Amino acid sequence: MERTLNKELPSKIGQDASIAGWVDIRRDHGKLIFLDVRDRSGIVQVVVTPKAVEALETAKELRSQWAVRIEGQVKARPENMRSEGALGAYEFSAQKIDILSRAEVLPFELGTEVNIDTHLDLLPLTVRSERARDIFLMQETLIDGFRVGLRTQGFTEFQAPALVGGDAEGGAAAFSVDYYYEKKAYLATSPQFYKQIMVGAFERVFATPKVFRGEKHSTTRHLSEYSSMDFEMGFITDHRDVMAVLEKLIRGIVQRLSENHGDLLARFNTTIPALPDDVPVLKLREAQKILGVKETPDLEPEDERAICEWAKKDKASDFVFITHYPLSKRPFYTYEDEDDLGFTKSFDLLFRGLEITTGGQRVHDHDTLVERIKGRGMDPEQFSYYLQAFKYGMPPHGGSATGLERLTARMLDLANVKEATLFPRDLNRIDVRLSQ
Amino acid sequence: MERTLNKELPSKIGQDASIAGWVDIRRDHGKLIFLDVRDRSGIVQVVVTPKAVEALETAKELRSQWAVRIEGQVKARPENMRSEGALGAYEFSAQKIDILSRAEVLPFELGTEVNIDTHLDLLPLTVRSERARDIFLMQETLIDGFRVGLRTQGFTEFQAPALVGGDAEGGAAAFSVDYYYEKKAYLATSPQFYKQIMVGAFERVFATPKVFRGEKHSTTRHLSEYSSMDFEMGFITDHRDVMAVLEKLIRGIVQRLSENHGDLLARFNTTIPALPDDVPVLKLREAQKILGVKETPDLEPEDERAICEWAKKDKASDFVFITHYPLSKRPFYTYEDEDDLGFTKSFDLLFRGLEITTGGQRVHDHDTLVERIKGRGMDPEQFSYYLQAFKYGMPPHGGSATGLERLTARMLDLANVKEATLFPRDLNRIDVRLSQ
Repeated sequence: MERTLNKELPSKIGQDASIAGWVDIRRDHGKLIFLDVRDRSGIVQVVVTPKAVEALETAKELRSQWAVRIEGQVKARPENMRSEGALGAYEFSAQKIDILSRAEVLPFELGTEVNIDTHLDLLPLTVRSERARDIFLMQETLIDGFRVGLRTQGFTEFQAPALVGGDAEGGAAAFSVDYYYEKKAYLATSPQFYKQIMVGAFERVFATPKVFRGEKHSTTRHLSEYSSMDFEMGFITDHRDVMAVLEKLIRGIVQRLSENHGDLLARFNTTIPALPDDVPVLKLREAQKILGVKETPDLEPEDERAICEWAKKDKASDFVFITHYPLSKRPFYTYEDEDDLGFTKSFDLLFRGLEITTGGQRVHDHDTLVERIKGRGMDPEQFSYYLQAFKYGMPPHGGSATGLERLTARMLDLANVKEATLFPRDLNRIDVRLSQ
Repeated sequence: MERTLNKELPSKIGQDASIAGWVDIRRDHGKLIFLDVRDRSGIVQVVVTPKAVEALETAKELRSQWAVRIEGQVKARPENMRSEGALGAYEFSAQKIDILSRAEVLPFELGTEVNIDTHLDLLPLTVRSERARDIFLMQETLIDGFRVGLRTQGFTEFQAPALVGGDAEGGAAAFSVDYYYEKKAYLATSPQFYKQIMVGAFERVFATPKVFRGEKHSTTRHLSEYSSMDFEMGFITDHRDVMAVLEKLIRGIVQRLSENHGDLLARFNTTIPALPDDVPVLKLREAQKILGVKETPDLEPEDERAICEWAKKDKASDFVFITHYPLSKRPFYTYEDEDDLGFTKSFDLLFRGLEITTGGQRVHDHDTLVERIKGRGMDPEQFSYYLQAFKYGMPPHGGSATGLERLTARMLDLANVKEATLFPRDLNRIDVRLSQ
């Protein structure tokens, strides 16, 4: 018999069907056995009665995570026996149970709260929990919303490389790779140069590559490998055009969440982000003045949290843009504000206490860019490939980069970005813990 | 004045507008200057007359790839003056021209046929050619079609890691990375283990990661970094379920191409692929018999071309599935056919002479998998993380991996897969040529 997905069972009441999935829970009630069986479409209650002699014998063996195929009939549950959930009004009466795959006894019940290291050690198992599935369903919605939202705004996707010739930006520590003939290559810390090059072809481009940071951080917000949602656009007036595209994009994503993921957010005790018509925009110095802290070149993590609290309280916004970081603190290609010398047409977007996006206008003039490279003590020759784009008519342009895992984590109020990362890599772990 | 995209000009006939883009071509006709101006939406002809005194002076300076902003009026062209293209019936009469960015004299006219190495050396320029833009628009359609097609079939996207702890499959040479504390990590040669793990969470999953092969090949079909379009699905009967999902996916993509990219394909002198209702499926041994070649464990490149010619001629298909590769020739996790011992429930999909996809059913039984690992002389302990998934109820499952660049190349009949790769990496190049 062809398989029926759990969610399709309501259309087959009274009929025979065959389902397949994992046993979530087995409950023994006297002579009856109840099973919660999960497939990709939902969870249905299966009842095994003494009339199905062989099935009942098999059911006695079943435990959590055993994979099964079950033949039987679809039934409506009496009004007073219905439970929560999309399939709570139905049950499946088993006639025949085939075991597809057995499972060892679980080290703990799936869904038990465990510390992050235990969770990650056992990820091939713990990723099956409702909580983990919720997190990564959310993540899929976010990255898909990013792509769809940018296509709507005229952007073309491209595939950015992971292997690069040098630690080009000179800032973030790049991992080195043993390439051919004893040469070194590096892992990209961002697709920055490539998306600027691609502006020349498509004007508006985006990419969602993995990027790599070899920083010796072990915090709740750093990863050695993460998914960067990058876009870049030509023919802008200034950084505010980039912010407008980003804001529109986020509005689209938030709209999607409110349409599809209300239940999911409720399971994390959180809500759709507050996103007023006017998202607050502050120069870094203005933010520091509001907080009453010293004018430093960047916000400390606690300042990021404090300014977000201010934005939520005073502006009813879970988002706040901080602009005009000092020239010295931003990468060499950042555009200086002619009307605020020493400061840049750059921005960060903070969301619920954390920087999730960094962006701005870029230098588009070839000679200025060469001077900037030299000014940072680097050799323009090392940038010859990239600089070609600027020899051949590069319009004013800018873009931004949003961390997918950070966005996911803040959207669900997760304490640690690693929980929002499938297979996180850091100082201490690549799948398994690294011995030191 | 706000910018109008070229494609929106027809709705503004007789009105003032401001456009922005790159000069493609300048043509001087006596006192008039004509410019072809390209933006992301299309190319429009701009006419500069002596009445616009300053604009004409500026226009005399302009050359290919200069970025400009132009104010003027939208006009319909007289019937006998219309040219090809979406905007051939319109022109833009310039009043004011602002130069946004100048370009050096081009080393050759954009679109000139050059050898692949020159093309790649100058990619930041040559990627602006119509041919390159066509290739990467096609590529975007393919990867987007892959994602949309799989979502339609109930698959969930996940982000597969690039950094891994070991060269797990033991086959393809993995690049090594200097990780923290003088430890080595490796670049993933495939997302195989991770997608199998994710079957436990979502049953049907896909990912489109970059993967890396440190093989010392320098051919027209090998890359050191490429985009792998991977999916994996649980609760299958055998490899034919995987082939059915893949075939449906490809039908969807081909459908999209025929709706959107007929013109583009014509520019490459090619057509929508032939995809009959019955795509030919041959066991490897059957294919070798048809070709009259010896029974070897794999098809040679010339055999792949020959069997594709056969499929086209005898079965009117640009695609052909080859199944049942010998156990010894496939990775350790490949499922052996109980009815054809020594051979596997595996397949390759060949398209216009080239293998673009490899897939099959996988071993889902924990103990069998451990035996297989040992049988290849490897230590199961090295696979302990992965093996967890099999301790906890892994259903029968399978999947496939399709190379995005190979698919793009064959779709457009490109001789070298590098032309279908943005920023290709190989033995001899990372952006710039590597000196040896």
